[in-house]
Amino acid sequence: MRMYDIIDKKKYKKKISDEEISFVVKGYTKGIIPDYQMAAFLMAVWCNGMDEEETLSLTMAMAHSGDMLDLSMIPGTKVDKHSTGGVGDKTTLSVGPIIASLGIPMAKMSGRGLGHTGGTIDKLDSIPGFSSDISDERFIEIVKTVGFCDASQTRDLAPADKKIYALRDVTATVDDYSLIASSIMSKKIASGADAILLDVKCGNGAFMQDRSSAIKLAECMMNIGKLAKRQVNCIITDMNEPLGNTVGNSIEVIEAIDLLKYGFDSDKVDKRYSEIVLYVCREMVLMSDIFKNEKYKDMTEEERVSLAEKLVRETVDKGCALEKMKEFIAAEGGDSNVVENEDLLPKAKYIYEVTFDRDGYLDKVDTKEVGMASLMLGAGRLKKEDDIDPAAGIKLFKHLGDKVKKGERFALLYTNKEETIKEAEDRLLKAYEVSNEAGSSKNVIIDILRQN
Amino acid sequence: MRMYDIIDKKKYKKKISDEEISFVVKGYTKGIIPDYQMAAFLMAVWCNGMDEEETLSLTMAMAHSGDMLDLSMIPGTKVDKHSTGGVGDKTTLSVGPIIASLGIPMAKMSGRGLGHTGGTIDKLDSIPGFSSDISDERFIEIVKTVGFCDASQTRDLAPADKKIYALRDVTATVDDYSLIASSIMSKKIASGADAILLDVKCGNGAFMQDRSSAIKLAECMMNIGKLAKRQVNCIITDMNEPLGNTVGNSIEVIEAIDLLKYGFDSDKVDKRYSEIVLYVCREMVLMSDIFKNEKYKDMTEEERVSLAEKLVRETVDKGCALEKMKEFIAAEGGDSNVVENEDLLPKAKYIYEVTFDRDGYLDKVDTKEVGMASLMLGAGRLKKEDDIDPAAGIKLFKHLGDKVKKGERFALLYTNKEETIKEAEDRLLKAYEVSNEAGSSKNVIIDILRQN
Repeated sequence: MRMYDIIDKKKYKKKISDEEISFVVKGYTKGIIPDYQMAAFLMAVWCNGMDEEETLSLTMAMAHSGDMLDLSMIPGTKVDKHSTGGVGDKTTLSVGPIIASLGIPMAKMSGRGLGHTGGTIDKLDSIPGFSSDISDERFIEIVKTVGFCDASQTRDLAPADKKIYALRDVTATVDDYSLIASSIMSKKIASGADAILLDVKCGNGAFMQDRSSAIKLAECMMNIGKLAKRQVNCIITDMNEPLGNTVGNSIEVIEAIDLLKYGFDSDKVDKRYSEIVLYVCREMVLMSDIFKNEKYKDMTEEERVSLAEKLVRETVDKGCALEKMKEFIAAEGGDSNVVENEDLLPKAKYIYEVTFDRDGYLDKVDTKEVGMASLMLGAGRLKKEDDIDPAAGIKLFKHLGDKVKKGERFALLYTNKEETIKEAEDRLLKAYEVSNEAGSSKNVIIDILRQN
Repeated sequence: MRMYDIIDKKKYKKKISDEEISFVVKGYTKGIIPDYQMAAFLMAVWCNGMDEEETLSLTMAMAHSGDMLDLSMIPGTKVDKHSTGGVGDKTTLSVGPIIASLGIPMAKMSGRGLGHTGGTIDKLDSIPGFSSDISDERFIEIVKTVGFCDASQTRDLAPADKKIYALRDVTATVDDYSLIASSIMSKKIASGADAILLDVKCGNGAFMQDRSSAIKLAECMMNIGKLAKRQVNCIITDMNEPLGNTVGNSIEVIEAIDLLKYGFDSDKVDKRYSEIVLYVCREMVLMSDIFKNEKYKDMTEEERVSLAEKLVRETVDKGCALEKMKEFIAAEGGDSNVVENEDLLPKAKYIYEVTFDRDGYLDKVDTKEVGMASLMLGAGRLKKEDDIDPAAGIKLFKHLGDKVKKGERFALLYTNKEETIKEAEDRLLKAYEVSNEAGSSKNVIIDILRQN
């Protein structure tokens, strides 16, 4: 088998066999196939696409390229969630404790932020003492005892995907459905979960710009899940503005805790954020063993959905999720007192109040620019090697559809680098467009796709 | 300007500007743009094509990437010819002396053989003392005094093309019209000729498999020529069997000399070979300064073609071309006595007679396989670094359409490696298909395309 012939086949839109894809993935990961041949292959894939079988082959070959986490020691259906990433997405931080408090084991691997998007691990690491770098044994132990663990992807999980993604990133071959889907699913499959809820973000702050492309990606991933015998449900959610009131790390942890503390319907909680958390949890509960119980077997889908939502609301209202948050933080070495006392989290030296510079209704926002303003303040990284400042970030007081007045308080900038404030403020304000007519907030939940 | 953005544009079928193509070519040649980005770009070009302007930009950027031969010291229109390569193609060896003997300056750079195709420089180098590695000054002097010089492409001619071609060769991006056309034309433009006759081979021994793809390539090159203000005419010729009676190096030199010695209509000369030489020369004469003379200005195209052919036939019949061959060989340091005495050329230790193994009419031949059989005997190279044996090769006594009988003399194999004979014989015989019905030889001249 020669890489040249495989490139040639894909270029002429011929089908690549499972054996050939395995050869490509193994050869490239081992360094036998050079970058330039892989780059040509990836561009041929970008231009000509891959069918379902090819996509599955690629996914499985990448999943098996490194460690495969074995969660069989944990009884029952292990659920996982994954978000395709956006600005201000702290969903996992609220979802994990809720799901675990319902007795559903959730074993999650998370990544760090890059560019305008944040990463769950960076957020968690802002908690004093918290360490996401834990062994497989400890990971499994925490899932078994606490019910939720979130570890950083430091292990050798889908190394082929890591190497291929790095190449795609510099050869303009990232934005392909099959390649994105197989990249995400390879890591999820290697992470060992039985059921996966995918939160596919769409809008100007996300990779997928519109509903139709988000659905296409979701269907592609669900299809891989089906062929790989994993239950995969998707929700498509709006990312045309930052999610919630905060963009950063420690300030996002506070927002996530606040939801568990005050509940879904509290005025202290952003409506869009609480809605996404509710829907993500509900879908995860629906995939869990709870609904495999005989007593629910005759329920209609509507009844099941209603019950799942009720369970999610109850565990938050009863304070079980908040307690679980403390347990989870403590299990990973963090100071669980942060849950009661947010002052224990890193504090920024400078807190700068941004007032709005125009009158009108917030009509549009370049979401990525808000992420970039936050990055400038220290909350994100441009390159993988960059350090981040856990205390930095942006707290927003206004959302799309809101009325804004010149001189009115609009946001708080948190940073330890005073010199970045002016440019971040400028970038933040410029990211927004106002109109003269009252608008309305867009629905944050766009679609729900369930595997049959 | 970023290479990433240029790849992205081409991937989305957007037009690449002249400035951007220049950035790509310069950056890649200097090693600033890595192989993997160039490979992705080339595959995007392969999949999405390039328009006329992009192709011209690429051609000119590659032509200007190294030395540009300045032939302005040589008065008049300098003509050049180029063949896209095949098996047994010694056309230049006969054409050069004919054209020069008519007083038309022909300044040619030739390459070496690789794989199943031979190279003119390898053939010339089989002449004792001959050296194609000559300085620009000497090259120009020979063209001025003798009228024809053929030098190897050892100078820094279109180094960008060399580097890009090497990458295309391993990334399955060779077979694209725009890329092939710009590769050929960049070298021709850097070589400094004013008028270029392109011999585009088509058939199973050539890169272009059929007439329509050969015409497409020819038109692409003619278009580049037009935009680059070079006169470019093309002939499309058949390469569904080796050209002439010989495949090798010294034995091809003998065949080329024989044409000059015995004339176009001699029984000692293969009809297809003499026809190609006649047409190539005729087209070159038509582009030369001869027809810029006032006295021919009212001639019809038919009359011009007829006169050009007459001139070509006369210079051969009068022995002028043969004399010019001697002059040319001597000018490049070779022993011109080979023209009269072929025994002065390298001789193979083993000459093996192949008899045919079936009865019938020669119907088809896998031309590349004949080239590969010759390569095995020592006449070609698999890798650029390989040495070749100037005496090795194959002399064919039968051509497509001929009747063959089992046991009848079919070919002579020339080699210094006895151990290769059996496999070469086997490969040669297997390359042919016979039929029970008398066939006919295909026309060697398929099309003539002249620039308006």
